Amino acid sequence: MPRSIQIGPQGELRHLLSTEGLPKALMLKILDRARGFLNEDQTEVVGRPLLAGKSIFNLFFENSTRTRTTFEIAAKKLAADVINLHVAASSASKGESLLDTIDNLVAMNADMFVVRHGQSGAPHLIARHVNQVAPRIRIMNAGDGRHAHPTQALLDTYTIRHFKGDFHNLRVAIVGDVLHSRVARSDIHALTTLGVPEVRVVAPATLLPSGLSEMGVKPTTSLIEGIRDVDVVIMLRLQNERMRGALLPSPQEYFKHYGLTEDKLKAAAPNAIVMHPGPMNRGVEIDSAVADGGQSVILSQVTFGIAVRMAVMSLLAEADHGAHP
Amino acid sequence: MPRSIQIGPQGELRHLLSTEGLPKALMLKILDRARGFLNEDQTEVVGRPLLAGKSIFNLFFENSTRTRTTFEIAAKKLAADVINLHVAASSASKGESLLDTIDNLVAMNADMFVVRHGQSGAPHLIARHVNQVAPRIRIMNAGDGRHAHPTQALLDTYTIRHFKGDFHNLRVAIVGDVLHSRVARSDIHALTTLGVPEVRVVAPATLLPSGLSEMGVKPTTSLIEGIRDVDVVIMLRLQNERMRGALLPSPQEYFKHYGLTEDKLKAAAPNAIVMHPGPMNRGVEIDSAVADGGQSVILSQVTFGIAVRMAVMSLLAEADHGAHP
Amino acid sequence: MPRSIQIGPQGELRHLLSTEGLPKALMLKILDRARGFLNEDQTEVVGRPLLAGKSIFNLFFENSTRTRTTFEIAAKKLAADVINLHVAASSASKGESLLDTIDNLVAMNADMFVVRHGQSGAPHLIARHVNQVAPRIRIMNAGDGRHAHPTQALLDTYTIRHFKGDFHNLRVAIVGDVLHSRVARSDIHALTTLGVPEVRVVAPATLLPSGLSEMGVKPTTSLIEGIRDVDVVIMLRLQNERMRGALLPSPQEYFKHYGLTEDKLKAAAPNAIVMHPGPMNRGVEIDSAVADGGQSVILSQVTFGIAVRMAVMSLLAEADHGAHP
Repeated sequence: MPRSIQIGPQGELRHLLSTEGLPKALMLKILDRARGFLNEDQTEVVGRPLLAGKSIFNLFFENSTRTRTTFEIAAKKLAADVINLHVAASSASKGESLLDTIDNLVAMNADMFVVRHGQSGAPHLIARHVNQVAPRIRIMNAGDGRHAHPTQALLDTYTIRHFKGDFHNLRVAIVGDVLHSRVARSDIHALTTLGVPEVRVVAPATLLPSGLSEMGVKPTTSLIEGIRDVDVVIMLRLQNERMRGALLPSPQEYFKHYGLTEDKLKAAAPNAIVMHPGPMNRGVEIDSAVADGGQSVILSQVTFGIAVRMAVMSLLAEADHGAHP
Repeated sequence: MPRSIQIGPQGELRHLLSTEGLPKALMLKILDRARGFLNEDQTEVVGRPLLAGKSIFNLFFENSTRTRTTFEIAAKKLAADVINLHVAASSASKGESLLDTIDNLVAMNADMFVVRHGQSGAPHLIARHVNQVAPRIRIMNAGDGRHAHPTQALLDTYTIRHFKGDFHNLRVAIVGDVLHSRVARSDIHALTTLGVPEVRVVAPATLLPSGLSEMGVKPTTSLIEGIRDVDVVIMLRLQNERMRGALLPSPQEYFKHYGLTEDKLKAAAPNAIVMHPGPMNRGVEIDSAVADGGQSVILSQVTFGIAVRMAVMSLLAEADHGAHP
Repeated sequence: MPRSIQIGPQGELRHLLSTEGLPKALMLKILDRARGFLNEDQTEVVGRPLLAGKSIFNLFFENSTRTRTTFEIAAKKLAADVINLHVAASSASKGESLLDTIDNLVAMNADMFVVRHGQSGAPHLIARHVNQVAPRIRIMNAGDGRHAHPTQALLDTYTIRHFKGDFHNLRVAIVGDVLHSRVARSDIHALTTLGVPEVRVVAPATLLPSGLSEMGVKPTTSLIEGIRDVDVVIMLRLQNERMRGALLPSPQEYFKHYGLTEDKLKAAAPNAIVMHPGPMNRGVEIDSAVADGGQSVILSQVTFGIAVRMAVMSLLAEADHGAHP
């Protein structure tokens, strides 16, 4: 991804499209800023009216109530006006093109779009377009196809830094359907950029993408081997549709080999944390004893996710409005 | 229902789940507080920013635009942030469990959940859970299965007090499909707790539940007998699905025997008021001449309903956050 | 339409239902006020909290995310509380009558309804009703059947005045499915009231309504003839359902005869502007080169539309609450 689309001429964050190509300094700036939106013991979000008068449009071409809610809350905690649009049900069905929809919403005085789209690259297309026609507009990618989910990766790295202090001595394993996962892709880029020396990927052979070694990642098909001595285990959600497809035998079979149980987790480092982007399939990729256990930081991820999205929104709102690539 | 779930250690209102077991003093406190959210002649709601910065989630597992709207307006009149979630269409369909959904929303820094659910007991389950994992969270039941609809009962009692002054000399008749009605159940508990000496229930034999006498209620299958000399007639909505089922012959037949007409209403006390939780089936359970007549207080119920919900929300927000059962 | 329904006794705007019968002075007042909700170069909307504490209900009986969004943004820029209701999916499906729904929402302390309805006259019916039962309520028509779309007509006239300065020396052509278009009807009434001396209508014979000459409009079936020397071309959206029906041969055939291309546009005056209410069918009623060309003011229409809706809302909120027809 060309660096210039999401980064402005002074190096400022102009859009958040992907963790690929996002400079380490900017990532750390986002994480530092997110800290300021949490209370002292980091259990509650602290609101601040930094975006009063701004209009943030949740533009969801793909339904995801949970993700939409996290952005809506973040925006409201910043006192922005939030407009929720399920675009599948509206103009798209009237045959209007994606960019016509965007042009119209821009003309309605939107300031920021949070875009979720089933097709990889849709937020980039939109960002490229608004850079030309309305450089004051900011784009946040809330998940596009199999490509990227940058706010998830940023909240994951926030969580890791919170519990582990630093990135430079860590072993991290990402476990599950890596092939179809935008979360895995974005996590890998974020973790390697932030200096994690060892990122491993664990999946059945049918769900391991090619090109992992170029990304600096070690693939393995054995869960025990993959999580041995790691400090962080990131479990991925197994999509229902995969379970019934040709790529996997059955949920039971998957759980037997790749489901994280307390017993298997003993292979990891003693204080390893367990993460999951949610929603969990208990008994498929993760056992309830682990999900609810002392090493799970899954709910902290959610809280940090609000703060991280607030951080990104407030940084985007500060970027120079007149900036051109 | 165990008293301790909705009542805190100092006797404060911690959740509002049911009028069953809700102490009389708390009910009166809610009604008194509601008065303060209405203007002098009690025709308009008066907003006050008591919940600014709080996030209230409307968590509707069952669709009800009208009820959701009343809670949304109440929350906005208190300056809370409102997040509307139709959960059927989201995580529930992804196989996530109810309590995982709750845990996630709690981690997003929700302060209060307004819960509507098709299954009786769902709000209790949620309240019990948050009492353990997040005692600062408050639950309001907006209707669960055939079990309870406490805000409806509280607005009904507000309406009765407003028009009749006192509860202690009243005869109240509840007419209609009592068997399937959470409104009837909640009304009966509220009215008997508040000291109404005579509560009657009128329904066809097929729609009369058992156990009414233990609730201190007199059942009858005759409308005229049931409403004779009563001060208050509460008409229930007849569900469409019942009308076509085996329990009832036809809407026309129902109206003939149980529809409230001006003529039948003469059996009640001269100044009797007529109530209905809405939406009405005109010509089925109630004749238009009665619905729009001088004894109908149906639209006052709606206005009082906003004030009563504001009262409950503001009382819940005051309860001690750290309280444990 | 009787003048008295939308105009109060002192001549103030009480509801906005139609441009038919709307006095010229009021139209100009709306346009002048809208100017104040735009920044100096009229590219951005300027918010002002004139409706803080007011509740505006978007009451959409017909789905239109785009139109609903424009009203939602306008209301939020005025700091009103906005409640979105898709009524098809709620009480309407429970068999409640339209006016019962309205009575209930009035009792919930609504201040203004924005009504979109598939049936012509529904907003009038509602306005007549609230004039009797709740004279403080204001109604805005957001499109009813084939009847009227007054805010679209007002934003169209704002756009024309902005680019052409005055109405008194203009030739305006409205092109497309005039027969089914509430936009065309409302535009014709607004333009003739504001003094445009020549309004033409261009459509295939099957899509030309009768009675045009009584409206002071010249019909023609030839696009070139119809737009010759005009200063303004208003293109109408061709509804998909018409294209497949008996009234039109095919989208390709329609484009050949009535699609606006750069070549055909040369027949208009040299500085003619091209307008479209959106969403566009590129390649059906309008060629992309025209839609995106230098004469297109289609996106300015959208921005002006927010300001015009703010103007109408703020004028309605000022009207004497106690006024009776």
